[in-house]
Amino acid sequence: MKKVALLGSTGSIGTQTLDVIRQHPDRFQVRLLACGRNIDLLKKQIAEFQPAVIVIRDEGDLSKLKGHLPIGTRAVAGESALLAAVAETDADFVMNALVGSQGLKPTLTAIEAGKTIGIANKETLVTAGHLVTAASKHYGAQLMAVDSEHSAIWQSLEGSKRSEVTRLIVTASGGSFRDWSADAVARATPEDALKHPNWSMGQKVTIDSATMMNKGLEVIEAHWLFDMPYENIDVLIHRESIIHSLVEYQDKSVIAQLGTPDMKVAIQYALAYPDRLELNGPERLNLWEVGALHFENTDPIKHQCLTMAYQAGETGGSAPTVLNAANEEAVQQFLKGELSFTGIADTVEKALAAHTVIAHPSIDEVMEVDLETRERTRNEK
Amino acid sequence: MKKVALLGSTGSIGTQTLDVIRQHPDRFQVRLLACGRNIDLLKKQIAEFQPAVIVIRDEGDLSKLKGHLPIGTRAVAGESALLAAVAETDADFVMNALVGSQGLKPTLTAIEAGKTIGIANKETLVTAGHLVTAASKHYGAQLMAVDSEHSAIWQSLEGSKRSEVTRLIVTASGGSFRDWSADAVARATPEDALKHPNWSMGQKVTIDSATMMNKGLEVIEAHWLFDMPYENIDVLIHRESIIHSLVEYQDKSVIAQLGTPDMKVAIQYALAYPDRLELNGPERLNLWEVGALHFENTDPIKHQCLTMAYQAGETGGSAPTVLNAANEEAVQQFLKGELSFTGIADTVEKALAAHTVIAHPSIDEVMEVDLETRERTRNEK
Repeated sequence: MKKVALLGSTGSIGTQTLDVIRQHPDRFQVRLLACGRNIDLLKKQIAEFQPAVIVIRDEGDLSKLKGHLPIGTRAVAGESALLAAVAETDADFVMNALVGSQGLKPTLTAIEAGKTIGIANKETLVTAGHLVTAASKHYGAQLMAVDSEHSAIWQSLEGSKRSEVTRLIVTASGGSFRDWSADAVARATPEDALKHPNWSMGQKVTIDSATMMNKGLEVIEAHWLFDMPYENIDVLIHRESIIHSLVEYQDKSVIAQLGTPDMKVAIQYALAYPDRLELNGPERLNLWEVGALHFENTDPIKHQCLTMAYQAGETGGSAPTVLNAANEEAVQQFLKGELSFTGIADTVEKALAAHTVIAHPSIDEVMEVDLETRERTRNEK
Repeated sequence: MKKVALLGSTGSIGTQTLDVIRQHPDRFQVRLLACGRNIDLLKKQIAEFQPAVIVIRDEGDLSKLKGHLPIGTRAVAGESALLAAVAETDADFVMNALVGSQGLKPTLTAIEAGKTIGIANKETLVTAGHLVTAASKHYGAQLMAVDSEHSAIWQSLEGSKRSEVTRLIVTASGGSFRDWSADAVARATPEDALKHPNWSMGQKVTIDSATMMNKGLEVIEAHWLFDMPYENIDVLIHRESIIHSLVEYQDKSVIAQLGTPDMKVAIQYALAYPDRLELNGPERLNLWEVGALHFENTDPIKHQCLTMAYQAGETGGSAPTVLNAANEEAVQQFLKGELSFTGIADTVEKALAAHTVIAHPSIDEVMEVDLETRERTRNEK
């Protein structure tokens, strides 16, 4: 029986994680649920999964849980309570499905506690990849990819030697605006951007897909998760999102993982590794019906966010922290209607230009750069 | 240093095997070369690789090797000499690249000697899969797939559990006549059929690709190599021959092996397993340039040979032996201009209809059915 702590239980990855666990009650037990403000959904999750510990964002919401906590279940609120709960939980596996750089500290806490960590929070590795990977080595904590692309790479690496890998190829659908003109994109609304052609995901990652920043963050994540230099990570536009990513080896053989787009496959793979579980929900891939898969090059101008992400990644140090923080703020502004779609890339560009890179930032420096970048981005809008 | 015995050294797989070995002289040493009548090429191979033993088909050709044998190299001729040489060689790895059911006895001899065997001779498994797999288990001899499709399946199975596999998907280019009308195919010449769109291969397999019998033989081979029921083996027409085959798991994840069509990748994988070697020759796969991959259904009428192969496979016993022997004879007749292209399928159909299946044939019965089928097919033409 694997004991699971789930951070971000009411989000897209969170609910899908619970769906996988629901299908395999003989294998998984939920010990901790953490979420933000969706208390109504949380109540249902508590009733169904009977976790030992609940963590919510705001102290003020604790009263709403009264009468909904099973005997022996403890509810706490706030960031330091979350970190303490992660440090103390008896869960073996921590699924970090928080959104944004708020996921960093819980990941580091879980690493220090020697947990196995499902990294659905890619910003953790983008904003402080050097610290997270060093700590995971030091404490012997395993990081399991949960993004579909990184899960695909992981699955395509199984049974082969890392020293024989020559290239990782990360696929990208191209996002909501892949067939839009530049003029139309400049006028795009949040509603337009939230219509992802293939994947059902949270708001932040759907906007990031439209700007291709998501692919940039994934390239940086792949760099850290698989210890691969940036020049050996390529992006392939593949509109059907059937091939989730590929690994090229020195014998010119390429291994790929494919499937209908469904996050539950990747979630299950991380949770159950090294097993693969029977899974209801995802449809069988039917290539006879799919008929064709298409591939295109990325465009350094059109995909400015991807270009900036590669640059920030190769610069290293605090540059990806700035990239990520400025992007998070800009996406929030866009969702609130305070920034145009193309303004997202401009905002990130300005933030990177204004920043003096710290080569090997400590965790405090990372948090400081993150905060400063957000403040500057908010003030400049 | 892996010591290699190569059966069929002057054929397509044979020369490509030597090309892989030539690129890695620190890893492989050729101890035995066996071939048919291409003595001129054999002489060059002897001079380059200095094997300990040479086996040729005809006693009469032995004199041609005089003055071309290094000191200590022994040359013999004929089938029983071949079997004795395989039994006695100090090679660890026997690459069986003989064409047709003549490959069966050398495979069984190599199995009894506990060798690791590269199965480039798919007819071995088609004609007597039950005997070959039982013997390989009994003697602990490993069978390594060399066909590109089976190598792809093998690579896609690495690092996963066989019990979690739900389906093997074998890809097929569709062969030389995939875009021809039924009328044109009926009038097709051997020259037409030998123009394979993607792969550079020997004559027999190229004709088999055009009839789709090759895919049928591969389905039977996959059944035996991977212990998979026929209902869980599907064929996918994929004209670009970039995805070499796929494996579907119970979590709906599909793993595939891709690459530019080049047999050296599969040969190298069998030879060097569990390593992957740097390899000159095969080009890197460039999906950005490929642009699109296409998939189609097979057609039970148009691909009559494939349909018959599934039926013979599911019938089992001596049925696949008849399928294979009748096909080998019919292909020879077609190549000599004695049979029309569509006559190949008709010949196989007649042979299967005329045969009373033996449920569990012994090796002697297999050889007898093979011989009888060939004779009947020759006499009926």
